[in-house]
Amino acid sequence: MIKNGWHQTKFRVRYKDTDCMGVVYYGNYLTFFETGRTEMLRELGFPYSNLESEGYRLPVTEAFARYHGNVGYDAQIIISTAIANVSKIRVQFNYRIHSEEDILLVEGHTVHACINSDMKPSRIPDKIKAVLEENKLIEATD
Amino acid sequence: MIKNGWHQTKFRVRYKDTDCMGVVYYGNYLTFFETGRTEMLRELGFPYSNLESEGYRLPVTEAFARYHGNVGYDAQIIISTAIANVSKIRVQFNYRIHSEEDILLVEGHTVHACINSDMKPSRIPDKIKAVLEENKLIEATD
Amino acid sequence: MIKNGWHQTKFRVRYKDTDCMGVVYYGNYLTFFETGRTEMLRELGFPYSNLESEGYRLPVTEAFARYHGNVGYDAQIIISTAIANVSKIRVQFNYRIHSEEDILLVEGHTVHACINSDMKPSRIPDKIKAVLEENKLIEATD
Amino acid sequence: MIKNGWHQTKFRVRYKDTDCMGVVYYGNYLTFFETGRTEMLRELGFPYSNLESEGYRLPVTEAFARYHGNVGYDAQIIISTAIANVSKIRVQFNYRIHSEEDILLVEGHTVHACINSDMKPSRIPDKIKAVLEENKLIEATD
Repeated sequence: MIKNGWHQTKFRVRYKDTDCMGVVYYGNYLTFFETGRTEMLRELGFPYSNLESEGYRLPVTEAFARYHGNVGYDAQIIISTAIANVSKIRVQFNYRIHSEEDILLVEGHTVHACINSDMKPSRIPDKIKAVLEENKLIEATD
Repeated sequence: MIKNGWHQTKFRVRYKDTDCMGVVYYGNYLTFFETGRTEMLRELGFPYSNLESEGYRLPVTEAFARYHGNVGYDAQIIISTAIANVSKIRVQFNYRIHSEEDILLVEGHTVHACINSDMKPSRIPDKIKAVLEENKLIEATD
Repeated sequence: MIKNGWHQTKFRVRYKDTDCMGVVYYGNYLTFFETGRTEMLRELGFPYSNLESEGYRLPVTEAFARYHGNVGYDAQIIISTAIANVSKIRVQFNYRIHSEEDILLVEGHTVHACINSDMKPSRIPDKIKAVLEENKLIEATD
Repeated sequence: MIKNGWHQTKFRVRYKDTDCMGVVYYGNYLTFFETGRTEMLRELGFPYSNLESEGYRLPVTEAFARYHGNVGYDAQIIISTAIANVSKIRVQFNYRIHSEEDILLVEGHTVHACINSDMKPSRIPDKIKAVLEENKLIEATD
Protein backbone atom coordinates (compact mmCIF):
# COMPACT_ATOMS: atom_id res chain seq x y z
CA MET A 1 0.00 0.00 0.00
CA ILE A 2 1.43 3.40 -0.98
CA LYS A 3 -0.22 6.48 0.55
CA ASN A 4 1.01 10.05 0.09
CA GLY A 5 4.26 8.64 -1.26
CA TRP A 6 4.85 6.31 1.71
CA HIS A 7 4.77 2.56 1.26
CA GLN A 8 4.06 0.43 4.33
CA THR A 9 5.01 -3.13 5.22
CA LYS A 10 5.04 -5.03 8.50
CA PHE A 11 7.58 -7.19 10.26
CA ARG A 12 7.39 -9.22 13.46
CA VAL A 13 10.50 -8.95 15.69
CA ARG A 14 12.14 -12.32 16.28
CA TYR A 15 14.49 -13.40 19.10
CA LYS A 16 17.23 -13.26 16.47
CA ASP A 17 16.65 -9.52 15.93
CA THR A 18 16.94 -8.58 19.61
CA ASP A 19 20.00 -8.20 21.80
CA CYS A 20 20.72 -8.54 25.50
CA MET A 21 19.29 -5.08 26.20
CA GLY A 22 15.94 -6.75 25.45
CA VAL A 23 15.22 -4.75 22.30
CA VAL A 24 16.12 -4.74 18.60
CA TYR A 25 19.89 -4.45 17.93
CA TYR A 26 20.57 -1.04 16.36
CA GLY A 27 22.25 -2.43 13.25
CA ASN A 28 19.26 -4.65 12.45
CA TYR A 29 17.16 -1.60 11.59
CA LEU A 30 19.23 -1.40 8.39
CA THR A 31 17.87 -4.84 7.51
CA PHE A 32 14.35 -3.51 8.09
CA PHE A 33 15.21 -0.59 5.76
CA GLU A 34 16.14 -3.24 3.18
CA THR A 35 12.76 -4.91 3.60
CA GLY A 36 11.03 -1.54 3.21
CA ARG A 37 12.69 -0.57 -0.07
CA THR A 38 12.46 -4.12 -1.50
CA GLU A 39 8.72 -4.33 -0.88
CA MET A 40 8.16 -0.80 -2.17
CA LEU A 41 9.98 -1.55 -5.45
CA ARG A 42 7.99 -4.78 -5.78
CA GLU A 43 4.73 -2.87 -5.36
CA LEU A 44 5.86 -0.34 -7.98
CA GLY A 45 6.24 -3.26 -10.39
CA PHE A 46 10.06 -3.27 -10.37
CA PRO A 47 11.21 -6.03 -8.02
CA TYR A 48 14.86 -5.45 -7.21
CA SER A 49 15.54 -9.03 -8.29
CA ASN A 50 14.37 -8.10 -11.82
CA LEU A 51 16.69 -5.10 -11.85
CA GLU A 52 19.49 -7.52 -10.96
CA SER A 53 18.59 -9.94 -13.73
CA GLU A 54 18.82 -7.00 -16.16
CA GLY A 55 22.40 -6.46 -14.95
CA TYR A 56 21.96 -3.48 -12.63
CA ARG A 57 22.50 -3.11 -8.90
CA LEU A 58 21.92 -0.35 -6.40
CA PRO A 59 24.56 -0.70 -3.67
CA VAL A 60 24.23 1.58 -0.65
CA THR A 61 26.60 4.56 -0.56
CA GLU A 62 25.22 6.16 2.58
CA ALA A 63 23.02 5.04 5.48
CA PHE A 64 21.65 7.03 8.38
CA ALA A 65 19.41 6.16 11.30
CA ARG A 66 18.11 8.21 14.23
CA TYR A 67 16.80 6.12 17.12
CA HIS A 68 13.83 7.51 19.07
CA GLY A 69 12.51 4.36 20.72
CA ASN A 70 12.75 0.62 20.55
CA VAL A 71 10.69 -2.53 20.92
CA GLY A 72 11.33 -6.10 22.02
CA TYR A 73 10.54 -9.66 21.04
CA ASP A 74 7.34 -10.34 19.11
CA ALA A 75 6.52 -6.67 18.61
CA GLN A 76 5.03 -5.93 15.23
CA ILE A 77 6.70 -2.98 13.52
CA ILE A 78 5.48 -0.93 10.59
CA ILE A 79 8.17 0.03 8.08
CA SER A 80 7.30 3.11 5.98
CA THR A 81 9.44 3.83 2.94
CA ALA A 82 9.47 6.75 0.50
CA ILE A 83 11.54 7.78 -2.50
CA ALA A 84 13.10 11.06 -1.46
CA ASN A 85 15.42 11.94 -4.31
CA VAL A 86 16.23 10.60 -7.76
CA SER A 87 19.10 11.72 -9.99
CA LYS A 88 20.59 10.16 -13.12
CA ILE A 89 22.76 7.85 -11.09
CA ARG A 90 21.44 7.89 -7.53
CA VAL A 91 18.27 7.33 -5.55
CA GLN A 92 17.54 8.12 -1.90
CA PHE A 93 14.98 6.25 0.17
CA ASN A 94 13.64 7.64 3.44
CA TYR A 95 12.34 5.37 6.21
CA ARG A 96 10.20 5.67 9.31
CA ILE A 97 9.65 2.69 11.55
CA HIS A 98 6.77 2.76 14.03
CA SER A 99 5.53 0.40 16.72
CA GLU A 100 2.06 -1.08 16.49
CA GLU A 101 1.00 1.67 18.92
CA ASP A 102 2.19 4.19 16.31
CA ILE A 103 5.22 5.33 18.28
CA LEU A 104 8.10 6.47 16.07
CA LEU A 105 11.05 4.14 16.73
CA VAL A 106 13.57 4.95 14.03
CA GLU A 107 13.81 7.28 11.06
CA GLY A 108 16.56 7.28 8.51
CA HIS A 109 17.61 7.12 4.91
CA THR A 110 19.82 5.25 2.48
CA VAL A 111 21.44 6.54 -0.72
CA HIS A 112 22.09 4.11 -3.57
CA ALA A 113 24.26 4.43 -6.67
CA CYS A 114 23.48 2.47 -9.81
CA ILE A 115 26.16 0.10 -11.11
CA ASN A 116 26.11 -2.22 -14.12
CA SER A 117 27.20 -5.82 -14.49
CA ASP A 118 30.85 -4.73 -14.73
CA MET A 119 30.45 -3.10 -11.30
CA LYS A 120 30.94 0.30 -12.97
CA PRO A 121 28.80 3.38 -12.18
CA SER A 122 25.88 3.52 -14.54
CA ARG A 123 22.83 5.65 -15.25
CA ILE A 124 19.66 4.29 -13.71
CA PRO A 125 17.76 2.55 -16.56
CA ASP A 126 15.15 4.93 -18.02
CA LYS A 127 12.08 2.88 -17.30
CA ILE A 128 12.87 2.43 -13.59
CA LYS A 129 13.99 6.08 -13.29
CA ALA A 130 10.61 7.16 -14.65
CA VAL A 131 8.75 5.08 -12.08
CA LEU A 132 10.94 6.32 -9.23
CA GLU A 133 10.38 9.96 -10.30
CA GLU A 134 6.66 9.44 -10.60
CA ASN A 135 6.39 8.02 -7.09
CA LYS A 136 8.79 10.44 -5.46
CA LEU A 137 7.72 11.98 -2.19
CA ILE A 138 6.55 15.55 -2.85
CA GLU A 139 7.80 16.94 0.40
CA ALA A 140 10.77 15.00 1.66
CA THR A 141 10.97 15.71 5.37
CA ASP A 142 14.18 13.91 6.12
CA MET B 1 46.72 0.41 20.28
CA ILE B 2 45.64 4.06 20.33
CA LYS B 3 47.56 6.46 18.05
CA ASN B 4 46.69 10.13 17.56
CA GLY B 5 43.33 9.42 19.18
CA TRP B 6 42.49 6.48 16.92
CA HIS B 7 42.22 2.98 18.33
CA GLN B 8 42.68 0.06 15.94
CA THR B 9 41.38 -3.48 16.00
CA LYS B 10 41.12 -6.17 13.34
CA PHE B 11 38.34 -8.47 12.17
CA ARG B 12 38.31 -11.27 9.61
CA VAL B 13 35.22 -11.29 7.34
CA ARG B 14 33.24 -14.53 7.62
CA TYR B 15 30.77 -16.07 5.17
CA LYS B 16 28.08 -14.97 7.63
CA ASP B 17 29.04 -11.30 7.17
CA THR B 18 28.78 -11.33 3.38
CA ASP B 19 25.74 -11.26 1.13
CA CYS B 20 24.94 -12.46 -2.38
CA MET B 21 26.69 -9.47 -3.93
CA GLY B 22 29.88 -11.19 -2.72
CA VAL B 23 30.84 -8.51 -0.21
CA VAL B 24 29.99 -7.46 3.36
CA TYR B 25 26.27 -6.63 3.88
CA TYR B 26 25.94 -2.89 4.49
CA GLY B 27 24.18 -3.26 7.84
CA ASN B 28 26.95 -5.45 9.23
CA TYR B 29 29.33 -2.51 9.30
CA LEU B 30 27.34 -1.28 12.30
CA THR B 31 28.38 -4.48 14.07
CA PHE B 32 31.99 -3.70 13.20
CA PHE B 33 31.46 -0.21 14.67
CA GLU B 34 30.31 -1.98 17.85
CA THR B 35 33.51 -4.03 17.92
CA GLY B 36 35.55 -0.85 17.43
CA ARG B 37 34.04 1.10 20.33
CA THR B 38 33.94 -1.96 22.63
CA GLU B 39 37.63 -2.69 22.14
CA MET B 40 38.56 1.00 22.49
CA LEU B 41 36.71 1.29 25.81
CA ARG B 42 38.39 -1.92 27.00
CA GLU B 43 41.82 -0.51 26.15
CA LEU B 44 40.96 2.71 27.98
CA GLY B 45 40.34 0.58 31.08
CA PHE B 46 36.53 0.90 31.01
CA PRO B 47 35.11 -2.24 29.44
CA TYR B 48 31.53 -1.54 28.46
CA SER B 49 30.49 -4.63 30.43
CA ASN B 50 31.80 -2.94 33.61
CA LEU B 51 29.79 0.18 32.83
CA GLU B 52 26.76 -2.10 32.57
CA SER B 53 27.43 -3.79 35.87
CA GLU B 54 27.54 -0.31 37.46
CA GLY B 55 24.02 0.22 36.10
CA TYR B 56 24.72 2.44 33.09
CA ARG B 57 24.18 1.88 29.39
CA LEU B 58 24.97 3.83 26.25
CA PRO B 59 22.27 3.05 23.68
CA VAL B 60 22.79 4.42 20.19
CA THR B 61 20.70 7.47 19.30
CA GLU B 62 22.18 8.06 15.86
CA ALA B 63 24.24 6.04 13.39
CA PHE B 64 25.76 7.06 10.08
CA ALA B 65 27.88 5.24 7.53
CA ARG B 66 29.32 6.32 4.17
CA TYR B 67 30.39 3.44 1.95
CA HIS B 68 33.45 3.96 -0.26
CA GLY B 69 34.43 0.39 -1.04
CA ASN B 70 33.83 -3.14 0.12
CA VAL B 71 35.59 -6.46 0.62
CA GLY B 72 34.59 -10.11 0.48
CA TYR B 73 35.03 -13.35 2.37
CA ASP B 74 38.17 -13.82 4.44
CA ALA B 75 39.36 -10.25 3.98
CA GLN B 76 40.94 -8.78 7.06
CA ILE B 77 39.60 -5.36 7.93
CA ILE B 78 41.05 -2.74 10.23
CA ILE B 79 38.50 -0.89 12.38
CA SER B 80 39.69 2.53 13.59
CA THR B 81 37.66 4.22 16.33
CA ALA B 82 37.96 7.66 17.92
CA ILE B 83 36.04 9.62 20.53
CA ALA B 84 34.77 12.67 18.64
CA ASN B 85 32.59 14.47 21.14
CA VAL B 86 31.71 14.16 24.81
CA SER B 87 28.98 16.08 26.63
CA LYS B 88 27.39 15.54 30.04
CA ILE B 89 24.98 13.00 28.66
CA ARG B 90 26.27 12.00 25.22
CA VAL B 91 29.33 10.64 23.49
CA GLN B 92 30.09 10.38 19.78
CA PHE B 93 32.42 7.81 18.29
CA ASN B 94 33.85 8.15 14.78
CA TYR B 95 34.89 5.13 12.73
CA ARG B 96 37.01 4.39 9.68
CA ILE B 97 37.24 0.90 8.32
CA HIS B 98 40.07 0.02 5.94
CA SER B 99 41.03 -3.06 3.98
CA GLU B 100 44.35 -4.75 4.63
CA GLU B 101 45.65 -2.86 1.57
CA ASP B 102 44.73 0.36 3.42
CA ILE B 103 41.82 1.24 1.17
CA LEU B 104 39.07 3.19 2.98
CA LEU B 105 35.92 1.07 2.91
CA VAL B 106 33.53 2.80 5.28
CA GLU B 107 33.54 5.83 7.54
CA GLY B 108 30.84 6.77 9.96
CA HIS B 109 29.83 7.66 13.47
CA THR B 110 27.49 6.70 16.27
CA VAL B 111 26.04 8.94 19.00
CA HIS B 112 25.20 7.40 22.37
CA ALA B 113 23.10 8.73 25.25
CA CYS B 114 23.73 7.57 28.80
CA ILE B 115 20.86 5.89 30.64
CA ASN B 116 20.71 4.45 34.14
CA SER B 117 19.29 1.18 35.43
CA ASP B 118 15.76 2.66 35.34
CA MET B 119 16.28 3.28 31.60
CA LYS B 120 16.14 7.04 32.33
CA PRO B 121 18.56 9.56 30.78
CA SER B 122 21.51 10.05 33.07
CA ARG B 123 24.77 11.97 33.24
CA ILE B 124 27.76 9.96 32.15
CA PRO B 125 29.53 8.86 35.37
CA ASP B 126 32.37 11.28 36.19
CA LYS B 127 35.24 8.83 36.05
CA ILE B 128 34.36 7.50 32.59
CA LYS B 129 33.57 11.01 31.34
CA ALA B 130 37.05 12.11 32.41
CA VAL B 131 38.67 9.26 30.51
CA LEU B 132 36.59 9.92 27.40
CA GLU B 133 37.50 13.63 27.50
CA GLU B 134 41.15 12.87 27.95
CA ASN B 135 41.24 10.56 24.95
CA LYS B 136 39.07 12.70 22.71
CA LEU B 137 40.24 13.22 19.17
CA ILE B 138 41.74 16.70 18.90
CA GLU B 139 40.57 17.35 15.37
CA ALA B 140 37.44 15.44 14.60
CA THR B 141 37.23 15.19 10.83
CA ASP B 142 33.87 13.54 10.58
CA MET C 1 -2.86 -22.88 8.78
CA ILE C 2 -2.28 -26.29 10.38
CA LYS C 3 -2.83 -29.34 8.17
CA ASN C 4 -2.12 -32.93 9.21
CA GLY C 5 -0.17 -31.56 12.15
CA TRP C 6 2.01 -29.27 10.02
CA HIS C 7 1.76 -25.49 10.36
CA GLN C 8 2.91 -23.38 7.43
CA THR C 9 4.25 -19.85 7.23
CA LYS C 10 6.14 -17.96 4.53
CA PHE C 11 9.26 -15.83 4.48
CA ARG C 12 10.90 -13.83 1.72
CA VAL C 13 14.72 -14.16 1.58
CA ARG C 14 16.48 -10.82 2.01
CA TYR C 15 20.01 -9.79 0.99
CA LYS C 16 20.82 -9.97 4.70
CA ASP C 17 19.99 -13.70 4.80
CA THR C 18 22.26 -14.68 1.91
CA ASP C 19 26.03 -15.10 1.78
CA CYS C 20 28.69 -14.81 -0.90
CA MET C 21 27.82 -18.25 -2.30
CA GLY C 22 24.64 -16.51 -3.52
CA VAL C 23 22.25 -18.50 -1.31
CA VAL C 24 20.96 -18.48 2.28
CA TYR C 25 23.70 -18.83 4.92
CA TYR C 26 23.36 -22.25 6.57
CA GLY C 27 23.03 -20.87 10.11
CA ASN C 28 20.15 -18.60 9.13
CA TYR C 29 17.87 -21.61 8.68
CA LEU C 30 17.81 -21.83 12.47
CA THR C 31 16.24 -18.37 12.47
CA PHE C 32 13.62 -19.65 10.02
CA PHE C 33 13.00 -22.56 12.42
CA GLU C 34 12.38 -19.91 15.10
CA THR C 35 9.83 -18.18 12.86
CA GLY C 36 8.13 -21.52 12.24
CA ARG C 37 7.66 -22.49 15.87
CA THR C 38 6.74 -18.93 16.94
CA GLU C 39 3.98 -18.67 14.37
CA MET C 40 2.73 -22.19 15.12
CA LEU C 41 2.45 -21.44 18.85
CA ARG C 42 0.66 -18.17 18.04
CA GLU C 43 -1.86 -20.03 15.89
CA LEU C 44 -2.40 -22.57 18.68
CA GLY C 45 -3.39 -19.66 20.91
CA PHE C 46 -0.20 -19.68 23.00
CA PRO C 47 2.08 -16.95 21.69
CA TYR C 48 5.57 -17.61 23.02
CA SER C 49 5.61 -14.03 24.32
CA ASN C 50 2.66 -14.92 26.60
CA LEU C 51 4.52 -17.96 27.90
CA GLU C 52 7.39 -15.59 28.71
CA SER C 53 5.15 -13.14 30.54
CA GLU C 54 3.93 -16.06 32.69
CA GLY C 55 7.56 -16.65 33.66
CA TYR C 56 8.45 -19.64 31.47
CA ARG C 57 10.96 -20.05 28.68
CA LEU C 58 11.82 -22.83 26.26
CA PRO C 59 15.54 -22.54 25.46
CA VAL C 60 16.89 -24.82 22.75
CA THR C 61 18.87 -27.84 23.99
CA GLU C 62 19.44 -29.43 20.60
CA ALA C 63 19.23 -28.32 16.98
CA PHE C 64 19.68 -30.30 13.80
CA ALA C 65 19.44 -29.40 10.12
CA ARG C 66 19.96 -31.44 6.96
CA TYR C 67 20.51 -29.35 3.83
CA HIS C 68 19.11 -30.69 0.56
CA GLY C 69 18.97 -27.56 -1.56
CA ASN C 70 19.14 -23.81 -1.24
CA VAL C 71 17.68 -20.62 -2.68
CA GLY C 72 18.89 -17.08 -3.22
CA TYR C 73 17.75 -13.50 -2.84
CA ASP C 74 14.05 -12.75 -3.01
CA ALA C 75 13.00 -16.40 -3.07
CA GLN C 76 9.89 -17.11 -1.08
CA ILE C 77 10.27 -20.06 1.25
CA ILE C 78 7.60 -22.08 3.02
CA ILE C 79 8.41 -23.07 6.59
CA SER C 80 6.48 -26.12 7.84
CA THR C 81 6.55 -26.87 11.56
CA ALA C 82 5.18 -29.77 13.58
CA ILE C 83 5.20 -30.79 17.24
CA ALA C 84 7.04 -34.11 17.22
CA ASN C 85 7.37 -35.01 20.89
CA VAL C 86 6.14 -33.67 24.20
CA SER C 87 7.28 -34.81 27.64
CA LYS C 88 6.80 -33.26 31.08
CA ILE C 89 9.78 -30.99 30.60
CA ARG C 90 10.66 -31.06 26.91
CA VAL C 91 9.13 -30.45 23.51
CA GLN C 92 10.54 -31.24 20.07
CA PHE C 93 9.58 -29.35 16.92
CA ASN C 94 10.27 -30.74 13.45
CA TYR C 95 10.76 -28.47 10.44
CA ARG C 96 10.70 -28.75 6.68
CA ILE C 97 11.53 -25.77 4.51
CA HIS C 98 10.53 -25.80 0.85
CA SER C 99 11.02 -23.44 -2.06
CA GLU C 100 8.03 -21.91 -3.80
CA GLU C 101 8.46 -24.65 -6.42
CA ASP C 102 7.96 -27.17 -3.59
CA ILE C 103 11.56 -28.38 -3.57
CA LEU C 104 12.70 -29.55 -0.13
CA LEU C 105 15.54 -27.27 0.97
CA VAL C 106 16.13 -28.11 4.62
CA GLU C 107 14.64 -30.43 7.22
CA GLY C 108 15.51 -30.46 10.87
CA HIS C 109 14.39 -30.29 14.45
CA THR C 110 14.91 -28.45 17.69
CA VAL C 111 14.45 -29.74 21.24
CA HIS C 112 13.45 -27.29 23.99
CA ALA C 113 13.54 -27.64 27.76
CA CYS C 114 11.19 -25.64 29.95
CA ILE C 115 12.73 -23.30 32.53
CA ASN C 116 11.07 -20.97 35.00
CA SER C 117 11.83 -17.38 35.93
CA ASP C 118 14.72 -18.52 38.16
CA MET C 119 16.24 -20.18 35.08
CA LYS C 120 15.67 -23.58 36.72
CA PRO C 121 14.28 -26.61 34.86
CA SER C 122 10.54 -26.71 35.23
CA ARG C 123 7.56 -28.77 34.12
CA ILE C 124 5.80 -27.37 31.07
CA PRO C 125 2.67 -25.57 32.39
CA ASP C 126 -0.35 -27.91 32.14
CA LYS C 127 -2.49 -25.85 29.82
CA ILE C 128 0.24 -25.42 27.21
CA LYS C 129 1.29 -29.08 27.57
CA ALA C 130 -2.29 -30.11 26.81
CA VAL C 131 -2.38 -28.00 23.66
CA LEU C 132 1.00 -29.31 22.50
CA GLU C 133 -0.12 -32.92 23.07
CA GLU C 134 -3.36 -32.36 21.25
CA ASN C 135 -1.61 -30.95 18.18
CA LYS C 136 1.25 -33.41 18.15
CA LEU C 137 2.16 -34.96 14.84
CA ILE C 138 0.75 -38.50 14.75
CA GLU C 139 3.57 -39.96 12.73
CA ALA C 140 6.77 -38.08 13.33
CA THR C 141 8.99 -38.80 10.36
CA ASP C 142 12.06 -37.00 11.50
CA MET D 1 47.22 -24.14 17.83
CA ILE D 2 46.30 -27.78 17.19
CA LYS D 3 46.58 -30.18 20.14
CA ASN D 4 45.53 -33.84 20.05
CA GLY D 5 43.67 -33.10 16.85
CA TRP D 6 41.75 -30.14 18.26
CA HIS D 7 42.36 -26.63 16.95
CA GLN D 8 41.47 -23.71 19.21
CA THR D 9 40.48 -20.15 18.46
CA LYS D 10 38.82 -17.44 20.53
CA PHE D 11 35.91 -15.09 19.98
CA ARG D 12 34.51 -12.28 22.10
CA VAL D 13 30.69 -12.20 22.26
CA ARG D 14 29.24 -8.94 20.95
CA TYR D 15 25.84 -7.33 21.63
CA LYS D 16 24.97 -8.39 18.09
CA ASP D 17 25.45 -12.08 18.98
CA THR D 18 23.13 -12.04 21.99
CA ASP D 19 19.35 -12.05 22.17
CA CYS D 20 16.76 -10.81 24.64
CA MET D 21 17.30 -13.82 26.89
CA GLY D 22 20.65 -12.16 27.66
CA VAL D 23 22.81 -14.87 26.10
CA VAL D 24 24.06 -15.92 22.65
CA TYR D 25 21.24 -16.70 20.16
CA TYR D 26 21.25 -20.44 19.45
CA GLY D 27 21.65 -20.05 15.68
CA ASN D 28 24.76 -17.90 16.08
CA TYR D 29 26.74 -20.88 17.35
CA LEU D 30 26.72 -22.10 13.72
CA THR D 31 28.62 -18.93 12.85
CA PHE D 32 31.13 -19.76 15.58
CA PHE D 33 31.44 -23.25 14.05
CA GLU D 34 32.29 -21.48 10.76
CA THR D 35 35.01 -19.49 12.50
CA GLY D 36 36.40 -22.70 14.01
CA ARG D 37 36.72 -24.63 10.75
CA THR D 38 37.97 -21.58 8.80
CA GLU D 39 40.75 -20.91 11.26
CA MET D 40 41.66 -24.62 11.48
CA LEU D 41 41.97 -24.90 7.68
CA ARG D 42 44.07 -21.73 7.64
CA GLU D 43 46.43 -23.18 10.23
CA LEU D 44 46.69 -26.40 8.23
CA GLY D 45 47.93 -24.28 5.32
CA PHE D 46 44.71 -24.56 3.26
CA PRO D 47 42.71 -21.37 3.78
CA TYR D 48 39.17 -22.01 2.61
CA SER D 49 39.47 -18.91 0.40
CA ASN D 50 42.29 -20.66 -1.52
CA LEU D 51 40.12 -23.73 -2.01
CA GLU D 52 37.50 -21.39 -3.46
CA SER D 53 39.94 -19.73 -5.83
CA GLU D 54 40.85 -23.22 -7.10
CA GLY D 55 37.16 -23.70 -7.92
CA TYR D 56 36.03 -25.91 -5.03
CA ARG D 57 33.52 -25.31 -2.29
CA LEU D 58 32.42 -27.24 0.77
CA PRO D 59 28.76 -26.40 1.43
CA VAL D 60 27.22 -27.76 4.62
CA THR D 61 24.95 -30.78 4.19
CA GLU D 62 24.26 -31.38 7.87
CA ALA D 63 24.63 -29.37 11.07
CA PHE D 64 24.03 -30.40 14.66
CA ALA D 65 24.39 -28.60 17.97
CA ARG D 66 23.72 -29.68 21.55
CA TYR D 67 23.41 -26.80 24.01
CA HIS D 68 24.72 -27.36 27.54
CA GLY D 69 25.18 -23.81 28.75
CA ASN D 70 25.39 -20.29 27.47
CA VAL D 71 27.17 -16.98 28.04
CA GLY D 72 26.33 -13.33 27.61
CA TYR D 73 27.80 -10.10 26.31
CA ASP D 74 31.57 -9.70 26.33
CA ALA D 75 32.25 -13.29 27.37
CA GLN D 76 35.26 -14.80 25.67
CA ILE D 77 34.54 -18.20 24.20
CA ILE D 78 36.99 -20.86 23.07
CA ILE D 79 36.04 -22.67 19.87
CA SER D 80 37.64 -26.12 19.49
CA THR D 81 37.45 -27.79 16.09
CA ALA D 82 38.52 -31.24 14.92
CA ILE D 83 38.35 -33.19 11.66
CA ALA D 84 36.19 -36.20 12.53
CA ASN D 85 35.73 -38.00 9.21
CA VAL D 86 37.05 -37.69 5.68
CA SER D 87 35.76 -39.57 2.65
CA LYS D 88 36.34 -39.04 -1.06
CA ILE D 89 33.60 -36.43 -1.24
CA ARG D 90 32.78 -35.45 2.34
CA VAL D 91 34.39 -34.12 5.47
CA GLN D 92 32.96 -33.85 8.98
CA PHE D 93 34.13 -31.31 11.52
CA ASN D 94 33.35 -31.64 15.23
CA TYR D 95 33.13 -28.64 17.54
CA ARG D 96 33.21 -27.90 21.25
CA ILE D 97 32.70 -24.41 22.53
CA HIS D 98 33.74 -23.58 26.08
CA SER D 99 33.51 -20.50 28.26
CA GLU D 100 36.66 -18.87 29.57
CA GLU D 101 36.00 -20.76 32.81
CA ASP D 102 36.22 -23.98 30.76
CA ILE D 103 32.51 -24.80 31.01
CA LEU D 104 31.22 -26.71 27.99
CA LEU D 105 28.59 -24.54 26.29
CA VAL D 106 27.89 -26.23 22.99
CA GLU D 107 29.10 -29.29 21.11
CA GLY D 108 28.20 -30.20 17.58
CA HIS D 109 29.30 -31.08 14.11
CA THR D 110 28.91 -30.11 10.47
CA VAL D 111 29.20 -32.33 7.39
CA HIS D 112 30.39 -30.80 4.12
CA ALA D 113 30.22 -32.11 0.57
CA CYS D 114 32.74 -30.99 -2.03
CA ILE D 115 31.40 -29.28 -5.15
CA ASN D 116 33.25 -27.85 -8.14
CA SER D 117 32.83 -24.58 -9.99
CA ASP D 118 29.84 -26.00 -11.89
CA MET D 119 28.18 -26.59 -8.49
CA LYS D 120 28.41 -30.36 -9.18
CA PRO D 121 29.50 -32.92 -6.55
CA SER D 122 33.23 -33.46 -6.83
CA ARG D 123 36.00 -35.46 -5.17
CA ILE D 124 37.91 -33.47 -2.58
CA PRO D 125 41.19 -32.40 -4.28
CA ASP D 126 43.95 -34.88 -3.39
CA LYS D 127 46.30 -32.47 -1.68
CA ILE D 128 43.67 -31.13 0.70
CA LYS D 129 42.27 -34.62 1.31
CA ALA D 130 45.74 -35.78 2.34
CA VAL D 131 46.07 -32.93 4.84
CA LEU D 132 42.59 -33.54 6.26
CA GLU D 133 43.35 -37.27 6.67
CA GLU D 134 46.66 -36.58 8.31
CA ASN D 135 45.10 -34.24 10.86
CA LYS D 136 42.03 -36.32 11.52
CA LEU D 137 40.99 -36.84 15.11
CA ILE D 138 42.05 -40.35 16.14
CA GLU D 139 39.12 -40.91 18.46
CA ALA D 140 36.14 -38.94 17.36
CA THR D 141 33.85 -38.69 20.37
CA ASP D 142 30.96 -37.01 18.70
